[in-house]
Amino acid sequence: MEQTPLRRGDDGIGFLLRYENVAWYEDGTVRILDRRIYPIQIQYVTCRRHEEVAQAIADMVTQSGGPFLAAAMGMALAAWEVRDKGEEELLSFLERAAYTLSHARPTTAAKMGRVTERALHVARQALQEGKTGLALVEALRDNAIAQIEENYRRYAAVARYLADQIPHNGTIMTQCFAETIVGTLLRELRQRGSAVKLFCPETRPYFQGARLTASVAQDMGFDVTVITDNMPGYVLEKKGVDLFTSAADIITLDGHIINKVGTFQIALAASYWGVPYLVTGSPNPSHPDLSSVVIEERDPDLVMDALGTRTTLPGVKGYYPAFDITPPKLCDGVVTEKGIFAPLDLKRYFEG
Amino acid sequence: MEQTPLRRGDDGIGFLLRYENVAWYEDGTVRILDRRIYPIQIQYVTCRRHEEVAQAIADMVTQSGGPFLAAAMGMALAAWEVRDKGEEELLSFLERAAYTLSHARPTTAAKMGRVTERALHVARQALQEGKTGLALVEALRDNAIAQIEENYRRYAAVARYLADQIPHNGTIMTQCFAETIVGTLLRELRQRGSAVKLFCPETRPYFQGARLTASVAQDMGFDVTVITDNMPGYVLEKKGVDLFTSAADIITLDGHIINKVGTFQIALAASYWGVPYLVTGSPNPSHPDLSSVVIEERDPDLVMDALGTRTTLPGVKGYYPAFDITPPKLCDGVVTEKGIFAPLDLKRYFEG
Repeated sequence: MEQTPLRRGDDGIGFLLRYENVAWYEDGTVRILDRRIYPIQIQYVTCRRHEEVAQAIADMVTQSGGPFLAAAMGMALAAWEVRDKGEEELLSFLERAAYTLSHARPTTAAKMGRVTERALHVARQALQEGKTGLALVEALRDNAIAQIEENYRRYAAVARYLADQIPHNGTIMTQCFAETIVGTLLRELRQRGSAVKLFCPETRPYFQGARLTASVAQDMGFDVTVITDNMPGYVLEKKGVDLFTSAADIITLDGHIINKVGTFQIALAASYWGVPYLVTGSPNPSHPDLSSVVIEERDPDLVMDALGTRTTLPGVKGYYPAFDITPPKLCDGVVTEKGIFAPLDLKRYFEG
Repeated sequence: MEQTPLRRGDDGIGFLLRYENVAWYEDGTVRILDRRIYPIQIQYVTCRRHEEVAQAIADMVTQSGGPFLAAAMGMALAAWEVRDKGEEELLSFLERAAYTLSHARPTTAAKMGRVTERALHVARQALQEGKTGLALVEALRDNAIAQIEENYRRYAAVARYLADQIPHNGTIMTQCFAETIVGTLLRELRQRGSAVKLFCPETRPYFQGARLTASVAQDMGFDVTVITDNMPGYVLEKKGVDLFTSAADIITLDGHIINKVGTFQIALAASYWGVPYLVTGSPNPSHPDLSSVVIEERDPDLVMDALGTRTTLPGVKGYYPAFDITPPKLCDGVVTEKGIFAPLDLKRYFEG
């Protein structure tokens, strides 16, 4: 298993999290690390049209925070596609590209819309400043980088609040791959000299917990143990886990957490054993409550497949809800860049 | 995927459950269907010494009810190994074989001990009747068949009590592969004309739910859907599951259920959603409470493997507890051949 050496200036973060491995625009292409097979294989998907970026997001080539950088880089690619066109045609093309990219997956459309709206805003401003062609492409790529850097700065604050809740050299359980917070949290803990142990449920059917979270933690020098998704309930108690933490695809204003399927079960077991559950992220104003939430259902064949091998007889059906819903009662706090809020009191996040 | 045609007289039960596919003594060998790879491949492990049978059990070539038939057939094989010896040497060999076979896996040693004790009893009786050599082998094989037929008769009664609790054409969720009860329950439901739907969590790391339970249900003509082990909590509510049911490796006299890891999580979620959980089996007098229960921990590498592909980076650790513990509070009843008992009141099972 060969990995390219760490680049200088990578700030000690795992291989998987370096921007150029997440999604990277250069010379008319967006290159995305294929997280569906990492670390079994290290392969990149190269997109030459923004629709291919949307397709890669839909196909889960990248996930967690990946799609947000991919969509922003996809807007730079869209600008490249129409670099020779006039302003009106160009803007109308970018608006359609924004829709295509933000709607690649249904559950996260509102959150992705913020990314593409921002890019459109940058494009309009650049055009007002007379930037077209390659200058516009560059402005959109700079915007993508600025966006992820802002995210990392914001998440550095989230990580500090979360790290405060983890006993020194304690034990935490994760779920799926919580991109931005995994890197920043582990960096923060390393800076504090806290040799935290991680238990990572593997997160079927894509194994993001095993393939991604555990790999990043291993890259960054932590003691990390993979378990299968039927084990968290037992392991929380048996191994004295101090904290369960996950990110969220959506946190509704009334405190429901929509995250990778399995989060609810772990939160429920954590509640049973008295282990705190803290979710990282921020409440989403587009979702006052569950009524606006669509739980994406993906290709059922995927749950009858394990890294390419079919697991049951022909004729058996599959069912694949990608997310589940954890009610506010099972969550002990929403960790934001402004501090920790009670799930039932998220309006305070928007005050002051 | 080729399967040998159903034998005549198979009584309409799935391929996997026909005795000759579970474990079968014939002419100095015990042949065991390799359930670790079925139905991806149909292969048998052939044992020529009883130690190989014990090893096959330890290696999980067969599981659920399989080891009990395998151990009984293994005793016939042991008698074959010493068919030319005198009575004293023979009996002492069988006693050692009984120990070896019953201790192949730690958690089930007490239950397996009942199988090998019964075989020893049959052997002693046969010797008293002057049966040695092949006659003794035959007596032990007949005993193995009688034992599984008694189990099936007993489980037919269990299945009737359990079927009474399932709404007509209702929906049930299973866990792992509950050998005897799956076949008898589905046969019972078919006789009642109830087109029950099944949701089978895949049961990592060995995928018994996907490979075995779902395959048997499909073989027997039922509507069956596989989900991954992080989905039961969501699916119980979303799909209106009427009943969660599992077998148990141990039911302690004080009502704790030791079963395939994951059972606890599903039982907890079922309790949260108000879905009844019924366990099949009978309380085990060797285990008054949890103090005598050993939770087997298996090779950690197995949880970082999916049907032969490694799921994470070298250096990452694994942890593989094979069972978990569901407290009596989360179980709505123990379904036995004598009826359904409250987990907190199992002493009644032994009365009258």
